[in-house]
Amino acid sequence: MHVLIIGAAGMIGRKLAERLSRDGALSGHALEAMTLVDVVTPEPPAAFDGKVTLHTVDLSEPEASATLIASRPDVIFHLAAIVSGEAELDFERGYRINLDGTRHLFEAVRLAHAQDGYRPRLVFTSSIAVVGAPLPFPIPDDFHTTPLTSYGTQKAICELLLSDYSRKGYFDGIGIRLPTICIRPGKPNKAASSFFSSILREPLVGREAVLPVGDEVRHWHASPRSAVGFLLHGATIDLEEVGPRRNLSMPGVSATVGEQIEALRRTAGDKAVKLIRRKPDEMIMRICAGWAAGFEATRARALGFAAETSFDEIIRIHIEDELGGML
Amino acid sequence: MHVLIIGAAGMIGRKLAERLSRDGALSGHALEAMTLVDVVTPEPPAAFDGKVTLHTVDLSEPEASATLIASRPDVIFHLAAIVSGEAELDFERGYRINLDGTRHLFEAVRLAHAQDGYRPRLVFTSSIAVVGAPLPFPIPDDFHTTPLTSYGTQKAICELLLSDYSRKGYFDGIGIRLPTICIRPGKPNKAASSFFSSILREPLVGREAVLPVGDEVRHWHASPRSAVGFLLHGATIDLEEVGPRRNLSMPGVSATVGEQIEALRRTAGDKAVKLIRRKPDEMIMRICAGWAAGFEATRARALGFAAETSFDEIIRIHIEDELGGML
Repeated sequence: MHVLIIGAAGMIGRKLAERLSRDGALSGHALEAMTLVDVVTPEPPAAFDGKVTLHTVDLSEPEASATLIASRPDVIFHLAAIVSGEAELDFERGYRINLDGTRHLFEAVRLAHAQDGYRPRLVFTSSIAVVGAPLPFPIPDDFHTTPLTSYGTQKAICELLLSDYSRKGYFDGIGIRLPTICIRPGKPNKAASSFFSSILREPLVGREAVLPVGDEVRHWHASPRSAVGFLLHGATIDLEEVGPRRNLSMPGVSATVGEQIEALRRTAGDKAVKLIRRKPDEMIMRICAGWAAGFEATRARALGFAAETSFDEIIRIHIEDELGGML
Repeated sequence: MHVLIIGAAGMIGRKLAERLSRDGALSGHALEAMTLVDVVTPEPPAAFDGKVTLHTVDLSEPEASATLIASRPDVIFHLAAIVSGEAELDFERGYRINLDGTRHLFEAVRLAHAQDGYRPRLVFTSSIAVVGAPLPFPIPDDFHTTPLTSYGTQKAICELLLSDYSRKGYFDGIGIRLPTICIRPGKPNKAASSFFSSILREPLVGREAVLPVGDEVRHWHASPRSAVGFLLHGATIDLEEVGPRRNLSMPGVSATVGEQIEALRRTAGDKAVKLIRRKPDEMIMRICAGWAAGFEATRARALGFAAETSFDEIIRIHIEDELGGML
């Protein structure tokens, strides 16, 4: 079994490679090789016995994808994208990387299929950004994609391409609509959604965090461990069961900021909660108002995709995976 | 007022140019110029006092669109596409013309906008092929797009692009999801949907027609006159009222084949109905089973888009517009 991860230097990509390395297998087949690709050179995963190939590649180069699939990997995880804020600021770059880059990859696989019947499993990470306000709560599986960002538009377009290429038999594609990943390890960043993680991550290690919105803001979350689980499950399930609608909203935890804070209090006490500094930010509040509060994810649950069931569990997983198991 | 019609040699394009020519105005502004474009040279409309420019252009040529908008038309109608069957048979050509061609046009307008603030109204013809079975009846406005053809995929992608370019202010776009157009004038063609028109059109002039499906098959129809009406209304309504969801399922008549036939009987008698020869075709039956039976079209109706309310009316319009007003 040979696995290709495109976007392997990102947070999820790294965790996916580590998990595969630990498992040493996928779908009951020994994992013999991993090819890790990103615009910056990815780290090779620790303790992997198989062959690791590292590539530094810009997927938006039309010829790049043909090289990546020359060795015919069995499973392709496509996680590479520029983020929402950047795609909004740089329209051309967003379309070049998030849309054209993905299309080049799909085309390379299609041409390889025509050549020798190559037909890999292709797991694509999509996003809840494919929907846009006004939104029902919870959002049903058959709700239309009306993105309010260029990033969301690019993801929604790639979902459509994925379904069509899969329908034609060029690859076996599945699109995984990730919830907002929480708790994101690392430092606070400039993403409008950054606070959902930082109001938990920072107080857990005794640091202050800024909360720019009210306690009533409800959003849709899953842990990094769940995200990796979704991708691996997507790589192994029977796609006949999925049928032609290949893009699935993943399960997650729908919680208000207030509920997040109460989970923090239960885990780490009042002293942790006191480290959250309220500093309302009109712009972030306005952006959040357009976001999804939660999805039904009926199909994904029925197909065996599973996430956390509470924020206590999301916090516990962060402590296990990022803080060595203890506060 | 200068109007550009891309796809002007097609059935709807010709009727649109004729109607504009008769009206001599759009949104209360005198129509001074029409630019008509297609892959074959379009016919100039009869009795138009303004300036007519004819172009033979392949929209999938990256530079073609810049030429078309060099004179900065106020309204662009984009009707050009290769049809469903052809896009399904020739994957590359379908994407090149229906997706890349449209994207080249959108990009040319965006670059012109950056240059001099150009921001035309852009009316795009989409299709009910953006949805795919299993489908509810009627299909609500917020139902997801899960096309089961490459043509439907290409239209759904262009809808997403249209919304994003409009949201960014590069043009004022509106996407018009046309029902199946009935009664299509002309000869029976090889489209699977051809019989919906031919079982009425042919008997109305004393000719036999073949019916390949059962009486219970329900589908979604509007006349060519309504289609032109939708496009003109889309060119003139206040898009502030439409908001960011720029793609609208148009109203229409939901009718079974049996109801179509009864309308024919009321209009042209038993002798016309007797000209319908039943010749079941498994393949066409299977294709039809995946098609939309009807849409709610709540938003479009509220915005003033109007279609026929019965098949008797659809037949009457055909007699008026194609048969000189009498049988």
